[in-house]
Parts: sequence; C-alpha cells; structure tokens
Amino acid sequence: MSTDAGTGAGTGAAEVLARCARLDTFSAHPRHLERTHLTPEHAQANAQVARWLERAGLETWQDAAGNQWGRVEGRTPGLPALVLGSHLDTVPDAGSFDGMLGVVMAIAVVERLRGRVGDLPFALEVVAFSDEEGARFGKALLGSQAVAGTWDDDWWELRDRTGTTLHQAFTAFGLDPRRVGEAARRPEDLVGYLEAHIEQGPHLEAADASLGYVTTIAGARRFRLAVVGEARHAGGTPYSRRHDALTGASEAILAVERLGRASQGVATVGRIEVTPGAVNVVPGRADFSLDVRAATDASRDALWEAIHAEIVAACDARDLRLEVVETHTAPAAPCAAWLQAAVVDGIRATGDHDPMGLWSPAGHDAMAMAAVADIAMLFVRCHDGISHHPDEAVREIDVARGLDALEHAVLAVRTAVEARPSVPAS
Amino acid sequence: MSTDAGTGAGTGAAEVLARCARLDTFSAHPRHLERTHLTPEHAQANAQVARWLERAGLETWQDAAGNQWGRVEGRTPGLPALVLGSHLDTVPDAGSFDGMLGVVMAIAVVERLRGRVGDLPFALEVVAFSDEEGARFGKALLGSQAVAGTWDDDWWELRDRTGTTLHQAFTAFGLDPRRVGEAARRPEDLVGYLEAHIEQGPHLEAADASLGYVTTIAGARRFRLAVVGEARHAGGTPYSRRHDALTGASEAILAVERLGRASQGVATVGRIEVTPGAVNVVPGRADFSLDVRAATDASRDALWEAIHAEIVAACDARDLRLEVVETHTAPAAPCAAWLQAAVVDGIRATGDHDPMGLWSPAGHDAMAMAAVADIAMLFVRCHDGISHHPDEAVREIDVARGLDALEHAVLAVRTAVEARPSVPAS
Repeated sequence: MSTDAGTGAGTGAAEVLARCARLDTFSAHPRHLERTHLTPEHAQANAQVARWLERAGLETWQDAAGNQWGRVEGRTPGLPALVLGSHLDTVPDAGSFDGMLGVVMAIAVVERLRGRVGDLPFALEVVAFSDEEGARFGKALLGSQAVAGTWDDDWWELRDRTGTTLHQAFTAFGLDPRRVGEAARRPEDLVGYLEAHIEQGPHLEAADASLGYVTTIAGARRFRLAVVGEARHAGGTPYSRRHDALTGASEAILAVERLGRASQGVATVGRIEVTPGAVNVVPGRADFSLDVRAATDASRDALWEAIHAEIVAACDARDLRLEVVETHTAPAAPCAAWLQAAVVDGIRATGDHDPMGLWSPAGHDAMAMAAVADIAMLFVRCHDGISHHPDEAVREIDVARGLDALEHAVLAVRTAVEARPSVPAS
Repeated sequence: MSTDAGTGAGTGAAEVLARCARLDTFSAHPRHLERTHLTPEHAQANAQVARWLERAGLETWQDAAGNQWGRVEGRTPGLPALVLGSHLDTVPDAGSFDGMLGVVMAIAVVERLRGRVGDLPFALEVVAFSDEEGARFGKALLGSQAVAGTWDDDWWELRDRTGTTLHQAFTAFGLDPRRVGEAARRPEDLVGYLEAHIEQGPHLEAADASLGYVTTIAGARRFRLAVVGEARHAGGTPYSRRHDALTGASEAILAVERLGRASQGVATVGRIEVTPGAVNVVPGRADFSLDVRAATDASRDALWEAIHAEIVAACDARDLRLEVVETHTAPAAPCAAWLQAAVVDGIRATGDHDPMGLWSPAGHDAMAMAAVADIAMLFVRCHDGISHHPDEAVREIDVARGLDALEHAVLAVRTAVEARPSVPAS
C-alpha cells in the first residue's frame, strides 16, 4: 500500500495526507475517529508510525509511557537531539489532523533530510506522544509530561469511564508503571522540541496565510464549579420560594461569555450536569466546568477574577451557594526566541516574507516539553478554525508549504547550533 | 407491631404517621426512599396496605395494573363506590408523605367509619395507585390512567434506565399485560374520587391553615427542547466564530424564569444535558426539559407561547437552531362542584369556617380519575412547601384535622347522594 511505503527524500503533502487517512483506520469506532490513551487502536497507531520510521531509516522504540519514538544520528553518534513531533491520541468523534499531522509531517521531514542528516550537529528524533488530549483519563499531556519528567504518581489512580485506573491501563498495554520514570529525557540530551500542528483557530485563514509561528502557548486554568440551591417540586414551589441552581448557573454561564468576550482571552463552559435532573423538579445543584485562557498568565488570571466576582454576586442575589475547585492550571509556555526564529526562517523560505505570529489558546505537547527543552511551533492553516470535530480539514498546498518550512527550520537550527560557542565535550 | 395493627374506629393521626414511616421501609435504598413502579418494594408496599385494609374489614385485590384496592359494601351490596386514595410510588430520594399520606388517611377514615358504612348509600373503596410520579418509565399516572380506562398501548415500549420495557416489568411483577384493560372502572360504578394529599406548596402555611380544598388541578405541558449549535475547540475558537449551544440554552432558561415569574403560572427547566460535554469543547448541542403549568389551560398555553417566542428570538440572534418536541400535555381537571362542597363541609367541621381554596400546580391521580368520575381533593399543610425531598414534613395536628375533615366529607357525600332524585335500578 502506498501509505505504508516510505518514499524517501521526496515525501510530499499528498503522501502526508494519505498517511493521516491511514491513521484514521485505527479507531475505537468504525464510523468515527476515537483513539484514546493505551487502547488497542493506540497500539496499532504506534506500530504504524514505527513502520514508517523504520522505513525512513530511524531506530525506533516505544518508551515507558507509551510514546513512540524514532532517532537517526547526526554528525557523530550520541549528540543531543532536535525532536520533531506531536501526538496520536484524539478526542471522541475527532478530525484527522489534530496531532497526527504533526507526527506525519515530522516523519516526512526526516525522510526529506535523509541524505543530509549525517551533516547535522545534532541527532534528529521523531516523537508520537501517547496522550495529549486527556480524553480517556481527564488529565491532558500524560505522554509529554512523562517525557518532560513532570509525572505525578497521584495520576495512577485516575479512572476512565469504565472505572479502569491509569495504573491498570498501563499494565494492560504491556507497560510497567514502576518504570514510567525511564520515559523522562534529560535537558542536556535535547537541542529543542519543534512541533507542527493545525492552528485550531481561524486567524491564518482570515489573514490568507498558509503558515504561522507561535509566540507563546497559553496556559489554561480549569475549574469545577457548583451552584447549590434546593431541589423543590416544580409545580408547587412558587418563584418566591425557589433556589433554582440551574437559573443561577445560567446567569454564571452568560457572565463567563460576556466577560470572556470583553477580554483578550477566552472562557468556556463545556460541561454541565444538574441534580436531581427530573423534568418536574427545580434543580438543586448544577455542576459545570470552566476553562479560562489568555495570552499571558496575568491577563488569564484577571479574567478569572472578574468571572468569579460576577458569579459570586449572581449566587448571592439568588441565595445560592457557590463551590469552586481548581482542577488544572498551567503557566503559559513561551516559545524560545532562537527556535522561534528558526521557524520564522522556515516560513520565509516558502515565500511568505512576513510570517504571522500567533499565541496559541489551545494547549499542546510543546507546553509540557517546555519543562525540559526549548520549544517552538509551526501552525498550519485549517478550514474555518474547526478542530475536535470530523470536519477538521487542511489544504494540500498548506501541508506542502509546511513541509518546506519545517525542513528549512531544521536547517536553520543547524545554523544556530553551529554558531554557538563550542563547549568542550564532557 | 403497632403499625401493623388495625386500631378500629379510633385510628388517629399518630397511627397515620407511624404507618407512613412503616411504608418508608419498602425502599430500593437503605438510606433514602425510592419506590418506583412494579419493583419488589412496590409489591411489599401493596402487601402492607392490603394487610391494613383486611384488618379494617375490607375485601382487597390488586388490579391488572398493579393498583392495590380495598372495598367495603354500603347499605346494599354492589352499590357504586366512593373511592378514597392516592399513590404509593415515589420519586428518587423522596419524602414520606407525597401520595402515601392520602392512602393511609383513606384507610384510617374507613376504619373510623367502620360501624356506619352499612348505612351509606354507596360502597367505600380505598385505592393505592401503583404509579403517579412516572419516575421509572418517564410517563406519569400509569396506575390511575389504567383505572380511568385511558391506557395507551404505545406505553408498553417505554423503557426504564436499565432498558426494561413497561411490558417486561408488568410480566416480571406477575401481571399479564394483555389484561390491563380489566383495571378500568366504569363511570356508573363510581360515585366519585376523593384524594387527600400534602399541598406541595407554601400557601396553606402562609395562611396559617391546616387544610384547603382544591378548585382545579392544572394540566402541565412538557417539552423536550434542543438548542443546536456547533461543537468547537474551546481554545482556538474566538467568540465571533462560536455557536455555543449552552449559552443559547442559558438565555432560554433565564427567559423561562422571567416569563414564568411575570405570569400567574410556573415554568421550570429541570433537566439539561450538553454534548459533547467536554471541558475544552464549546457545546454543540444542549437538550433540556420544560414544564409549564397554570390554573387554566388558556393561561398555561399563553405562557408557553411567550416562552417559545423568546427562545426562538434568542436562538435566531445567535444563529442557533431550536428543536421542540411536546412530550406531555394534560388538560386542567376541575374539581366537581358538589364533591368540592363536601370537602369544604369537611374542613368546616374542623372549626375552619372559611376554608381556603387553591388550584393545584402539581399533578395528581385525581387528574386521571377525572376521565371516569367526579373528583375532589383535600390539601394538608406541609412544611415550607417542600416535597419530592426527604425534608417533606407534616404536623400531627394537621393530619388529625385532615382525618376529621375527610370523615365528614364522606358523610357530606352521603347527604348529597341521598338528596339526589332517585333513579330506578337498572
């Protein structure tokens, strides 16, 4: 099959898109794409990526956290590595490109550089992270955090919808939870981490640009909020006696939208559940999620403070109680100036002389990798900003330009590394 | 055990409350009360009620729809019956009185009238309906509708949360679905249906009254509404590109409250579910329920029209699509003037010379029974209007007055029936 055949130095956009389609076949569902962490389809996708990497001449291994790797040595064996990659896991009912495009583009770029890798002052590695979305265990970036050495043993008790713990899932996948620390990479072994990804936003399309470089990746703060009132009979309880948790939550949700819209950030309520949840009972409790993002941690925190104050006031006015649990917080991860400059050089090589810089409101593996390496990202235009949806789409011309840009970015990294003052080997 | 012992003519409020507590023990859960249609605990409650009825001297039977009955003949055997009763099923995490109080009071009143029943120009019957809440199959009044002869064979395919159909549940309970029609009573065999029930509202308490009579039972209309937008990544999708189903639904929910509050009726959103329901995805769809009630069908329908218009406008403004399915509609059931007058007489006999009349926003078995018999209802004050909740509470003095009122109401029915022009026996 053509999608299994490494085509060598000339691997182009059509082949990249065909490989993304091939990865679509490794899914929990025959009709829509769902590939979550440590599932059989995850193993199949890793195996497919390993075959492509081996045909491209890379040494391959699956690490202790289920991430798939490939490596080809540079000028001399054992040099620090420039890592290219992204992730293979998806949300439920996903599109074909969020994550996968970056993995497949990384493989293609290494293929295109095949004859020149022996000249590089670093090794080239490709990584396909096992979990970025967090769709199975509710905790994102598990794969890349293992690599970054920021694993937290509390995570072993996370459970999926069927009650399986992360610990059990590791074992069922053939991994030894006790060895997860072996997945961590040392900073001195990494030149940097460079990730191509669909934009997941509409800005490149609006600017008629194929590609963009990322300046910083926003760190989301996530909260579990609960508005607590009193469950009462819907017929017999007049408005004066109601403490309706859902109308209180509705005011909160509209405040989130209004304040988010007025800010430079975004804030979203993506989940809500009410109890008792009966057609004829005034809701006594509404649990909902909140996700807050902005370009800087300070502006994100200011947005949360404004939202919180408004929700408190709405609950007070209705004599409702508010519960707030912060479930996730991540600092913004700025891209390293020198590596960002290499991406800019790469985009310029495609003929775009004024590359567009964007902050990423979406999280990426690069955020986790920032703990252990300099990071940079190349964004590829996607249709209508759609992601996390089967309608995700990219244009072949944008992928072709992306491959050129990523290839040139690697060469720009060579230039930058070679320009560094030499350090005596230890 | 005292709660098993029929105490004869003097059955009082303390015994009624003890019997309600005894019924609490027949529950699906050890710590909270849940007794739904055609469950083992339903069978246990029916058996307990049958024991009380038998000890009170009534002939007992369980009908073809799982309702428990008792009958004692009047002046001559075979006379039409005045039926006293209510229901034994509950919502999840229920209180002890919604339904059960009316059944236990009916038994107590028949006990108190024991020596005088032979003088009555009608038989006395007690009914304990099998399903009023609709908590198991999502369709209310199944027991009383079988008795009223308004059964719909489409209901056989209704399913509970575990996927069991109503048809299967009938069979598992030992009932023959083909014989459900035998539960239907003929209008000519019924003098009327008289139901005591907690108010499930705060009006009697606010008026410092123990008891009230019902003028009409409002017919609810219920809808399943869906606001449909587009699921998009919460990070990458700026507000200008969002079609957030949950913010649209939130506006709808606040409109329901605002318009309901401005009307003489009540409207409630008790359930909501969003999809995909992920913390980092803008909701693409929000499904929610709507329950609309008012004293008259015309005012209820006007309230729904106003709500619908406002939701349509909110969805249009956000470019969201609205889906509306009406899942339930029932006409208001007015209480028969002559039977209502008997209840008023009964309340006056307790020393309340200006009894309070109320419309019932909550549905009751009497609504279904109105299709086959004249109906009336006696409301008993409850604490803070609370029902469908473990905090449901009644005062012993109010129950004592309720027993007196119900007993006197039966005697007032005798007076009314005896005053009718005699009809030759057929």
